[in-house]
This record gives sequence, structure tokens and C-alpha cells, in this order.
Amino acid sequence: MTTHLEQAYALDAADPLARFRARFVNAEPDLIYLDGNSLGRLPHDSAMLAHDLTARQWGERLIRSWNEGWFTLPERVGGKLAQLLGAQTDEVIVADSTSVNLFKLAVAALRHQRGRTRILTDDLNFPSDVYILQGIVEMLDAGHRLEIIRSEDGVHGPVEALLAALDEDVALVVLSHTVFKSGYLYDMAAVTAAIHAAGALVLWDLSHSVGSAPVELNAADADLAIGCTYKYVNGGPGAPAFLYVRRDLQPLLRNPISGWMGQHNPFDFTLEYAAELGLRHFLTGTPAVLSLALIEPGVDLLLEASMNALRAKSIRQSEYLIALWEEMLAPLGYMLKSPRQAEQRGSHISLGHAEGWRINQALIRDLNVLPDFRAPDNIRLGIAPIYTTFTDVYTAAEQMRRAVEERIYARYSDQRAAVT
Amino acid sequence: MTTHLEQAYALDAADPLARFRARFVNAEPDLIYLDGNSLGRLPHDSAMLAHDLTARQWGERLIRSWNEGWFTLPERVGGKLAQLLGAQTDEVIVADSTSVNLFKLAVAALRHQRGRTRILTDDLNFPSDVYILQGIVEMLDAGHRLEIIRSEDGVHGPVEALLAALDEDVALVVLSHTVFKSGYLYDMAAVTAAIHAAGALVLWDLSHSVGSAPVELNAADADLAIGCTYKYVNGGPGAPAFLYVRRDLQPLLRNPISGWMGQHNPFDFTLEYAAELGLRHFLTGTPAVLSLALIEPGVDLLLEASMNALRAKSIRQSEYLIALWEEMLAPLGYMLKSPRQAEQRGSHISLGHAEGWRINQALIRDLNVLPDFRAPDNIRLGIAPIYTTFTDVYTAAEQMRRAVEERIYARYSDQRAAVT
Repeated sequence: MTTHLEQAYALDAADPLARFRARFVNAEPDLIYLDGNSLGRLPHDSAMLAHDLTARQWGERLIRSWNEGWFTLPERVGGKLAQLLGAQTDEVIVADSTSVNLFKLAVAALRHQRGRTRILTDDLNFPSDVYILQGIVEMLDAGHRLEIIRSEDGVHGPVEALLAALDEDVALVVLSHTVFKSGYLYDMAAVTAAIHAAGALVLWDLSHSVGSAPVELNAADADLAIGCTYKYVNGGPGAPAFLYVRRDLQPLLRNPISGWMGQHNPFDFTLEYAAELGLRHFLTGTPAVLSLALIEPGVDLLLEASMNALRAKSIRQSEYLIALWEEMLAPLGYMLKSPRQAEQRGSHISLGHAEGWRINQALIRDLNVLPDFRAPDNIRLGIAPIYTTFTDVYTAAEQMRRAVEERIYARYSDQRAAVT
Repeated sequence: MTTHLEQAYALDAADPLARFRARFVNAEPDLIYLDGNSLGRLPHDSAMLAHDLTARQWGERLIRSWNEGWFTLPERVGGKLAQLLGAQTDEVIVADSTSVNLFKLAVAALRHQRGRTRILTDDLNFPSDVYILQGIVEMLDAGHRLEIIRSEDGVHGPVEALLAALDEDVALVVLSHTVFKSGYLYDMAAVTAAIHAAGALVLWDLSHSVGSAPVELNAADADLAIGCTYKYVNGGPGAPAFLYVRRDLQPLLRNPISGWMGQHNPFDFTLEYAAELGLRHFLTGTPAVLSLALIEPGVDLLLEASMNALRAKSIRQSEYLIALWEEMLAPLGYMLKSPRQAEQRGSHISLGHAEGWRINQALIRDLNVLPDFRAPDNIRLGIAPIYTTFTDVYTAAEQMRRAVEERIYARYSDQRAAVT
């Protein structure tokens, strides 16, 4: 009889993407890193590029580097991201943070949809996205109402309630394609079609999808999208975000934060803003070049691995984790807080436990597993198919078993309030 | 009789800040770099930090680095910048780009000043700042009017016209403290006092002042300020910007781009935005950590040199350049397009010439001088007192003389339209 560990080794040996793990820095080989959906690992190519960016591009070429590649970075990296997202290369551009991009696109959409006053989202969306929308409603002071549709179980998206809420007064629907806590994955095509049938626009937050789950923006006829590059894209801490505007919408929408990078002929220094054609209009200020340039090697690696292969591996790994949960962890009080069906799931699994906070402490401090904790009791296990191994997945499950069976979690108090 | 070059050497030998030049990477010792007001040089300390940030903080510590210093970077670096700006450490924070920060503070100010409809700026301000204000007026659609006061000579700020335009309907005045083309330096205290007398708020753009000119935000009782960190601060290409809100105004203003980094207890993940106390409320999304962290060594160097010593050297150098202009360049058709009085000047000098565009090409391509060109005919010579030498200044003047006297500029056509 093969042991669990032998089984994990065999799965790794059969993994066609296994060779990609060596393309990332792995400074602590014994660390089980399952937080690539908060901050992805450092590609070796990025470490080399960081040196070139500072020593040569900044230090040596100085201002000349703007004409030697920096100026076109937003669309060059955006164009590559588009290939991961089922979009045209001139429909995705890199700029600012996810929150600022949401602000720009949502304000533009609301002004385009003048006359309609309702904005819909759900309670599984990133809180930050909800905050941005609340701020917009307050700022515009034009009678908009933000409605947060509630999920029945906190796991699955409230699709039926959402569709039932659609009417001719809905201007915009904002949803996370893969939701941050449970990993629920919306059916983008079906939901987009229903939203369009009501005459509303949809804006998808792809932060937890890009690089791990299939996204087909054009096939779904999606209007707008945003997303971050520091999770599964492995672009580095706080790397700039991207935004997508479907080509036919680009000339119809107006960027409310109209800075010089979105101006036609920015070096004319005229005093009257004239929108640049295409998506560059949605740029604002000078981009953080070093953080922006370091996104590219991560995107190149994903393209090399191919999204289809990454998705296939992600599903194999999350199915494997769920099987291990059922056998080893469910009997110890762990609850599956992610959808059971693979097609409804992104690339992370949340496991709840009454002692979730203390278990999470034990995993980090004693058991060399680095997951992510999301209140109130979720231990979030991020599978980054480009570098996570089946052995990682098995070891994490085994340590979660030990944390409870050996009562290792009991060393820690439940003083959550003291921790930010 | 001493030659010009001997004189320059002597000035360098007597320069108390001369030792700081060696703290910066100087890959081409023969290059006369006078564009530090577009992109400052790379400090050696930043090159080392860049390696630590990627290899160790990102590659090795991964997500743990957020609790090991990244989370507090915006206020740590902001607090140090405050020391350069005559502000309290809790009045300056680093976030986003200069344009996005202008948007946030201007919208917040206009909402605070509800009832007043006029916004004043001048035609010497950064075009990008004017664009942002135009976008705000259009977006808020609340009857605001942006008025651009015209400078009589294109060199000096239109102070009298500006003060004459003030009345009880002016909500906000937005000015560049040091203007980007001529280098005119506003008297912050006097202008702020006049604006306050009319009940208006003032927002100063310090992009061309910070690190080169004295700024005393508290002493001037300034309300709001923004600025970039990639010019005289030497923070790296497109490094995040800073914003200042006077302490008593902080609880009164509302950030319109209300993301999770400005939320009280961002890790509670509640769905109702509650403003964080103090200036963190003006943060929005996750910052570009690598670009943000690399600002700090540049600020440390300026603090070590001291702003008073830097300003004294900057004045000595710009006076020296003006003397050389008068002797060597004025007879060749170069015009001084910066104020003659040192107290009305920041740290760059603009020289106009009918053949300015072609001369600028000759300087860059044939004469190893890197200035900056600003339409229609300005050659902008940025003096970064922390690393610019008197020999740099003399050599630049000498090459500008040669460019005209030896008709080197005549090699180039006037095909400006082809270049962006």
C-alpha cells in the first residue's frame, strides 16, 4: 500500500508543469507556502531584471530610459496580460492600484449610464471594492444607491438573487470573478449576458482569477474589468494593477482622473486636456516604473506554462486537497468553506474551524506552513499551480491534522483583537 | 589669470557638500547630467536596498514582510519627507502618483468648501495639474469654474492678478511652488496668507521644490500639498508621490477614493467603510512596495546634507550659471527665462534660444550634456545641489556656447513634430 507521501510524490512526478517550480526563488525549501494568492513568489527572471532596472536602466541610462522602453510599459505589459484574459492586446493596460482603477472605471460607467441610479454588488466581493463604490456614491452625490446582495451560505455567489434584482434602473454591477474568501468562481458569460439583458454594465474584479483560473473577457462580452498583479501573476508586492475596457466602449468612457499620461501628446504641455485615443486615456500620472516593469517576467512565465495547463493542474490540486480534507481533516472539525464543484471554484480552498485563528498561528509558528487567515475562522490555502507541488498540498493537510490532533494550536490564545 | 575651468574646480574644492556626489552611481563620468529635476540619480544605498527588497524581503520573507516593515512604509517615508518640508511627521504620507493625490485632495477640499464655486490656478502650473482640475470640474458637475490666471512674461508667477482674483466665491487655489518651466518660486507664506484672508484653501504642488528649495509648510500655515519623489528626492523612476494635509484639517476632509488602506482596521474586512484616523485615511489601495521603499535612501541623503546647505549651494550654482550665461551665452542669442533674483527661483534655470530644439539635440547627441527641453524653446538646466558640481555647470555652459558658435546644432532639423 502506498503512503500519502508516496502518492504525493507520484503526482508531482507526473505533473507536466513541475519544471516551473525551479523558475522561482525558493529560499526555504521546507516552507509550505500557500499564500501565493496574497503575494506570489519571486521569479528568478524578476530578480535579474530588478538588478538591470536599478543598476543600468535607472543608474546608467537615467532619463533616457523613458524613450528606451519605460514609456510604453503600461501597454506592453497590459498587452501580455490580455493574452491571459481572453482579451485583445489593446484592451488591457497597467496603471495605479486595483482600487484606483475601480474608481476610474466605475465613475466613467456611471456617467455613461446617466439616468440609472442603482449599483449592485454582493457581500462576497472584496471589502475594498465595496468601500470604493461607497465613496463614489457619496462623492458624486447624484442619487446613486449601492445594493449589496447577500450570499445565502457565504460560500456561493448569490446568482439568483442578483439576477432577480436586475431592472432598467441598474447602471452597473461590480463582482469579484473569483471571490476572495470562499474561492467561488462566477460564470462570467452567463452573468454578463443577464446583466446586459437589463441594459446594465458589468465590471469584473479579476484579482483572484488572473493567472490561476480561465478568464475569457471577449467571449463573455464583458464590459470592464480590473485586477491586481501581485497574487497569481507573481508581479511583486503592491505591483501596479491592470484595467480592461472592451474596445467599443473605449471612446465612450471618460477617465475622471485625467492626468498627463492619458492626455493626447503629453509633451505638448498645452493647458487644455484632450483625451488620448484608446486605453492610454485611462492612464493618469507617471507610473511606478520599477514595480511595473517587474510584472512582466511573471506574465511571461504564465504564458509559457499556458492558462489551460495551469487551470487543469489547479483543479487536480484543489480536488486532491478536498479529498485529503474529507479523509483527514473533516473528522477533526474542519469545514469546507469553498464550493465542492471544480467549475465553481478558483484556485484556493478555505477551510473553517472553530479554532481557526489558533490553528493558523500553530501552522505559521510551529509547523512551517504559511496559509492566510480571513476572519472569522477561515484558513485560506492558496494553490498557485505554477509552483505549488502536490507534496506541498499533502504536507499542509498533514500539518493541519497534527495542529488539531496533537493540540498544538492550544499553545496560542484567541487574542485576535491585539493583532492587525 | 585663472581660466573658467580652474575657477570651477576651485568652487568644487570649496563646496562643503562635494562629498555627496560619491554617494550616487556615476556610470558615465563624462556625462553632464542636468536633468535631475526630471529623474534624479541612483543613490548607491538604493542599489543595495533594491537587492535586499527583491532577494530577501520579497523572495525569502514573502508575505511576512508586510508585518516586517512594508505596512508602515507610507508613513515612515512620509514622516522623513515631512522633515524636508517643515511639517509634522504625521502630516505627510506617501501614496499613489502626484496626479492621483491632487485629485484626492482637491475633491476633498471642494466638498469641504461647498457653496464656493471658483478654483484658481495659473498658466505656469504643471499642465497635468490643470488637467486633473478640469477632470474634477467635469466629473463633479456641480457648477465649479476653473480659472487659469496668466503670467505676464511666462517667467514670473502672476501674483498680483492672482490676489486680485480672490473673493468669497473662491474655494481652492492650486499652484506649483516652484514652476516647472521657468523655475519661479512662489512666496508660500505671503500667498497662503492672502488666500486664507479670502477664506479659500491652498494646495501647493512641491514637485520641483522638495529636496532643492526651502519649504516651510507649517510656518506658512499651508493647507494642502502634494509632490513627487523622483526628481530632487532621487526616489527612482515614477516612485510614489506624497501628500500633506495640515493636522487640523485631517479630520475635516474625506478621501473620495476610499480604499482598504485608508479604512480603519483594514483586516476586519467589514463591508462598511470607516475612515482611518489621521493621514492614513488618504491612502487607497496596496502601494507599489518596491518603488515606495526605494524612496527612503534618497530622503536620508537629503536629510544628512540638510536643506539649508542644499539651498545655499543651489543658489551659488544658479548664480554661477547666470553669470556664465551673461558672459558666454547671452551674446549668442540665449535668453534667460528664469527669474534673476535668487529668492524667486528654485533650482533650475531655463535658457531660451530661437534654435532651442536643435541646440538641445546637439547637446545630447554630440556634446555629452543631458538637459531637458520644454516647448517652445526652453533648455532647462536642472541643478541638483546634492550631486551637481560647479564643473558640471561650467561644462554645460561651455558646450552650449560651442553648440551655437561652432554651429553644431545645424546638423539637426527642426522636425519636432516627429518626436514625442
